[in-house]
Amino acid sequence: RVNGDRLWDSLMDMAKIGPGIAGGNNRQTLTDSDAEGRSLFKTWCDEADLTMGVDQMGTMFATRPGTDPDALPVYVGSHLDTQPTGGKYDGVLGVLAALEVVRTMNDLGIKTKHPIVVTNWTNEEGARFAPAMLASGVFAGVHSLDFAYNRKDPEGNLFGDELKRIGWVGDEEVGARKMHAYFEYHIEQGPILEAEDKQIGVVTHCQGLWWLEFTLTGKEAHTGSTPMNMRVNAGLAMSRILEMVQGVAMAEQPGAVGGVGQVFFSPNSRNVLPGKVVFTVDIRSPDKAKLDRMRAKIEAEAPGICDALGVGCSIEAIGHFAPVTFDEKLVTAVRSAAERLGYSHMNLISGAGHDACWAAKVAPATMVMCPCVGGLSHNEAEEISKEWATAGADVLFHAVVETAEI
Amino acid sequence: RVNGDRLWDSLMDMAKIGPGIAGGNNRQTLTDSDAEGRSLFKTWCDEADLTMGVDQMGTMFATRPGTDPDALPVYVGSHLDTQPTGGKYDGVLGVLAALEVVRTMNDLGIKTKHPIVVTNWTNEEGARFAPAMLASGVFAGVHSLDFAYNRKDPEGNLFGDELKRIGWVGDEEVGARKMHAYFEYHIEQGPILEAEDKQIGVVTHCQGLWWLEFTLTGKEAHTGSTPMNMRVNAGLAMSRILEMVQGVAMAEQPGAVGGVGQVFFSPNSRNVLPGKVVFTVDIRSPDKAKLDRMRAKIEAEAPGICDALGVGCSIEAIGHFAPVTFDEKLVTAVRSAAERLGYSHMNLISGAGHDACWAAKVAPATMVMCPCVGGLSHNEAEEISKEWATAGADVLFHAVVETAEI
Ligand SMILES: NC(=O)NCCC(=O)O
Ligand SMILES: NC(=O)NCCC(=O)O
Repeated sequence: RVNGDRLWDSLMDMAKIGPGIAGGNNRQTLTDSDAEGRSLFKTWCDEADLTMGVDQMGTMFATRPGTDPDALPVYVGSHLDTQPTGGKYDGVLGVLAALEVVRTMNDLGIKTKHPIVVTNWTNEEGARFAPAMLASGVFAGVHSLDFAYNRKDPEGNLFGDELKRIGWVGDEEVGARKMHAYFEYHIEQGPILEAEDKQIGVVTHCQGLWWLEFTLTGKEAHTGSTPMNMRVNAGLAMSRILEMVQGVAMAEQPGAVGGVGQVFFSPNSRNVLPGKVVFTVDIRSPDKAKLDRMRAKIEAEAPGICDALGVGCSIEAIGHFAPVTFDEKLVTAVRSAAERLGYSHMNLISGAGHDACWAAKVAPATMVMCPCVGGLSHNEAEEISKEWATAGADVLFHAVVETAEI
Repeated sequence: RVNGDRLWDSLMDMAKIGPGIAGGNNRQTLTDSDAEGRSLFKTWCDEADLTMGVDQMGTMFATRPGTDPDALPVYVGSHLDTQPTGGKYDGVLGVLAALEVVRTMNDLGIKTKHPIVVTNWTNEEGARFAPAMLASGVFAGVHSLDFAYNRKDPEGNLFGDELKRIGWVGDEEVGARKMHAYFEYHIEQGPILEAEDKQIGVVTHCQGLWWLEFTLTGKEAHTGSTPMNMRVNAGLAMSRILEMVQGVAMAEQPGAVGGVGQVFFSPNSRNVLPGKVVFTVDIRSPDKAKLDRMRAKIEAEAPGICDALGVGCSIEAIGHFAPVTFDEKLVTAVRSAAERLGYSHMNLISGAGHDACWAAKVAPATMVMCPCVGGLSHNEAEEISKEWATAGADVLFHAVVETAEI
């Protein structure tokens, strides 16, 4: 069994870096706070006798050697970056539980054939730079390094410049590492485990996603002196598209979601009808047919909505991953670890995207999940109990050790 | 007749300060650019032998003395501040045409019984600090100085602090000045004069306004792992309210408008359903019954829309002026000036709010308008011709001289 108190203390120590405004964290990728979090994590890795490698995307790989020089490593990790108003556990739990796995192996003097690599992927959240899971996407060959370096945050800063600024451009070629297996432990970020009163989610699939960025072009005009029939109202078109997306998602229930988290009005002045409205539609489903049907419906209906108002409409797909089926052998390893440890468990489909989804393209991969209170995540009030955190870390420990072979 | 070339040159010189990104201006109130614009204006006033007074709201009053020491001054002005993506004429034309009126009087050696005061009101636009027409509102006793000083911009800066920072807190008590009359010359900001092929708008009324600031409270949650039936979607509620406002305004056609120019999602991240959405509804009508009925309908319907989604809804009226009827004698002075000068003219109701609307509470007031291309304003592409600008300035000159009595 892992040391749950030690894991919890590390979580609480990391949460001190980049504090939010309501008890959570704002440690967005490639900010000064991210750099501070990385330093603390590196210190802990050094203390655990791990060897740190960093790739050109800034992803951190901390290795515990194996006994067989030819054996590929088992990777275990997640991400330390957060949403602007994020929780203390989303991502962080997976990285620090991976660290706890090797700390426990050190305590118990366990040697494995395969090396273990504790991993912190850069920019999983995609909050500052879209798309999400950027570094693991480059690692899996889904994006080019050049594409990643040229991602822009809302202020126009480039990913590549910011990575350099915080001093975490590594020298390793991205994706050069080969994996024996990849494990990721994460809070569920959804309500199912808590509702079903299960301690462990055995993650069999991850739902797919499209991010569709809309740019609507209206006519900037005075809200007072512009008659209703002369308006080219991009804000109204946005409203109608949000309602349409809601309808499209509802028509695919259950097993699909759709919504909008980000909207920019320009110039965003009370007495100016917006000349431009930019927003991102986020649609997801574990069922590829549903996912693609939703996208097709939205792209078919939006232009008509805009045309009726004279509004220009352009749509760019800025994020995508197909639904993922995780590796059967690793899934079984997680399930039997939970059984062996006496933890209640159930199969789960991940509602959120994870680095494991891209890792699954280049290696056998799977995930372990623990419940979170009220299913709440991407919210500073995100909460889990120490017992939940520990149970999942125990399962991770057993599944990793089994896969890395004693 | 005024010197149209000189007026135009001054307009072009002022437009160099706080240039926009598309040929217009971003010289928002109490910014460094505003300070620079004020300095240039002061230099011009000094050159025209005017005496500058500044009140505690930073409003600039440049006086040309009259011949009768007991005669109250005729005030003529508008505002030099702009929208974030504003035009070169909105407000500026009125201030610089007032200056052109006294320059022409100086050229011709005209002496008047009543002094003339060229006026630049602070924060007419209300873009940075709501409400609009803030300084003239304090002048007219509608707002307290304390209320004005505590207005916040989106970054949380206080009006009072910013006024101090740019060095334009004057020593005059706001509203202590008494007016014989107030004239304001402005571009129409609407399409009517151009469509009717008239050079001069004789402004008889100004429509009234309500600014209703909505704060919708949803539940920040992950866009992927939060099932549709567990969402408390403040963004969707906002969309439905925008559609409802559109319907309410359409039901009152003609003679009413309603729309939304400003929306803030929080935390505004692509994969986070917003926990908070703040936006401002702008409704207007020259008919007080219509205006109040629109407000009542919106305030009656919004809570139900929000309730159906579990979203919290609070509404604050952050801006208001009742419809205004301008002074009959001054309106007649404007109309007869246009007649005398041979300019085509028609009666107009101002669609936008103006400092004249507040001045009308404490003095006889009216406005002169000239057309603008396509009715476009609050847009960097706002355009007028030198001929239009000059015709209105001629009318202003005649009406002011008549009112100030030779
Ligand atoms: N786990 C997580 O929140 N990842 C961010 C990418 C996504 O939106 O699913
Ligand atoms: N003239 C003008 O645009 N004033 C700003 C106040 C308003 O929105 O009407």
